[in-house]
Amino acid sequence: MIQTILLKNRPKGKPTLSDFQFVEEKKDLNLQEGEILLETTYISVDPYLRGRMSDAKSYVPPFEVGKPITSGIVAKVIDSQNDKFQQGDYVSGMMDWKTQQISKGEGLLKINKDLAPLSAYLGILGMTGLTAYCGLTQIGKPKAWETLVVSGAAGAVGSVVGQIGKILGLYVVGIAGTDEKVAMLTSDFGFDHAINYNTTEDMGTALKTACPDGIDIYFDNVGGPISDAVLFNINKFARMIICGAISVYNNTEIPKSISVHPFLVKNSALMQGFIVSNYSEKFPEAMKQLSTWLMEGKLTYKETVVEGFENTPQAFLDLFEGKNKGKMIVKV
Amino acid sequence: MIQTILLKNRPKGKPTLSDFQFVEEKKDLNLQEGEILLETTYISVDPYLRGRMSDAKSYVPPFEVGKPITSGIVAKVIDSQNDKFQQGDYVSGMMDWKTQQISKGEGLLKINKDLAPLSAYLGILGMTGLTAYCGLTQIGKPKAWETLVVSGAAGAVGSVVGQIGKILGLYVVGIAGTDEKVAMLTSDFGFDHAINYNTTEDMGTALKTACPDGIDIYFDNVGGPISDAVLFNINKFARMIICGAISVYNNTEIPKSISVHPFLVKNSALMQGFIVSNYSEKFPEAMKQLSTWLMEGKLTYKETVVEGFENTPQAFLDLFEGKNKGKMIVKV
Repeated sequence: MIQTILLKNRPKGKPTLSDFQFVEEKKDLNLQEGEILLETTYISVDPYLRGRMSDAKSYVPPFEVGKPITSGIVAKVIDSQNDKFQQGDYVSGMMDWKTQQISKGEGLLKINKDLAPLSAYLGILGMTGLTAYCGLTQIGKPKAWETLVVSGAAGAVGSVVGQIGKILGLYVVGIAGTDEKVAMLTSDFGFDHAINYNTTEDMGTALKTACPDGIDIYFDNVGGPISDAVLFNINKFARMIICGAISVYNNTEIPKSISVHPFLVKNSALMQGFIVSNYSEKFPEAMKQLSTWLMEGKLTYKETVVEGFENTPQAFLDLFEGKNKGKMIVKV
Repeated sequence: MIQTILLKNRPKGKPTLSDFQFVEEKKDLNLQEGEILLETTYISVDPYLRGRMSDAKSYVPPFEVGKPITSGIVAKVIDSQNDKFQQGDYVSGMMDWKTQQISKGEGLLKINKDLAPLSAYLGILGMTGLTAYCGLTQIGKPKAWETLVVSGAAGAVGSVVGQIGKILGLYVVGIAGTDEKVAMLTSDFGFDHAINYNTTEDMGTALKTACPDGIDIYFDNVGGPISDAVLFNINKFARMIICGAISVYNNTEIPKSISVHPFLVKNSALMQGFIVSNYSEKFPEAMKQLSTWLMEGKLTYKETVVEGFENTPQAFLDLFEGKNKGKMIVKV
């Protein structure tokens, strides 16, 4: 039996389980020349998928209603009519939310399960790590001793950003939403300081205290009031890396915040939105650097692994409740 | 009699005449070795001076209460004990709002009154022209056929930005606040299209119609709702050059706008605030280019000249009512 998860309807505001549909088919998948048969091992669920569920003009085509969701997946080659892939190989790439599927191998990367656990290729050695590395280095242009603030710091991307910041000699402050996550940032990921935005009344003052030399780089995963508070503490020539805006993805009306213009003019500051594929020419360098740091023990990562293909939609919904620590992954 | 204009108190919200104080002194200015005596000819009044009247942390030190305002000035050398300056020379630079003053010549530029009218050195061949040129080329990185939108387009900087845009082969749309200004943008400055934001109900739709290929570059002098409307029409990799925010300079509370984060992420877009001195290494190239274009007749400019030193504060206040067309200058 092959199971598939389709987008049933475009979510209004926060997605719910009823926006997804499960389909079971009994069919034999017969390979043509050049094709491979893949069995899904791990599925990545990510906040950015919410954007593709809307039909708004976007940088990538929106998902189609009635068609499978796609995201980063690690799969095992269980049959092959393609010379480049052998039975038993593992691959990563963008694939459908299916338990089995046929591919011609385009866009798939063969991965080495001896170098790192398979799930790492959806995280620190996948889009997550590349996003953290490329955003911080290409937009942030960090210099040693500068102050880096990371929002969504206990999330998949944020926790890697903070660690790279420390490797590069920055002073790193993380923002997260529970005391447990905040403790994890300093004890497990080596952040210099961490702030719980849910228990902090005045984030502006808390950031001022935590960053006595002001903020040079802000890696922003959340948007909203946390990012507003950062603006009051930026230095001249600050770089704000706008990676995500999870705090507003589910808003049905255009959210308001303070006007950034006076802060940008006064501080000659930069805000740059991005998606990781903008920097694809940097991927080989980034992968080499990330795997080196990982093997040297300079980088660590957390995963929240949910078991069972059928729990994929719920795992996605849990992202918006902050239930993950580090990368959220479904083990099929 | 030497007249001076002091900052009497820091304005709350919109400045008024009572925030300025006139002082008259009868004194002989005796020169020491190395000094020159200057008689003020033209005074530049600019929106950015509002920022320096507040005591907020800023990129330049705020004006001191009880001390003279300073701004761009053209002055005549009427006496000299400095080998580098002769009686009869004209100079431009940052000077006090005084009818006469003594200087050591530091930071002053000798200007050529045969190349362009003296007042041009406060405008198109001064900070105004440099701001337009450096902002558009260094941050905007324009490519021929791209679409450029300019807000505050009939102002000093905006009218130069639009003309440079046309010289560089862009499609240029200007936004201004009266029908007269809008007509001037297309007839005198060669903009492709212009929009009157005061008579346009839905700026988002008006921009969409005016920019059928979307907006690649936005040169922003105003901030506020006009800039919000631009966000809905930006293309992927849009560059938003944040030069000023005249619409909010006088606000006493932090103004709110729509949240820029989702737009920046979705479009991999950039917002960069700046002041012209960030690009001082580009000034020689910029001056050469601007004066060449001016002599070739490719660039033109408008001035609103107010007569009389005593009218300097009112001329400054009139900037916030949009009473100027092009550069606002006081002739002493």
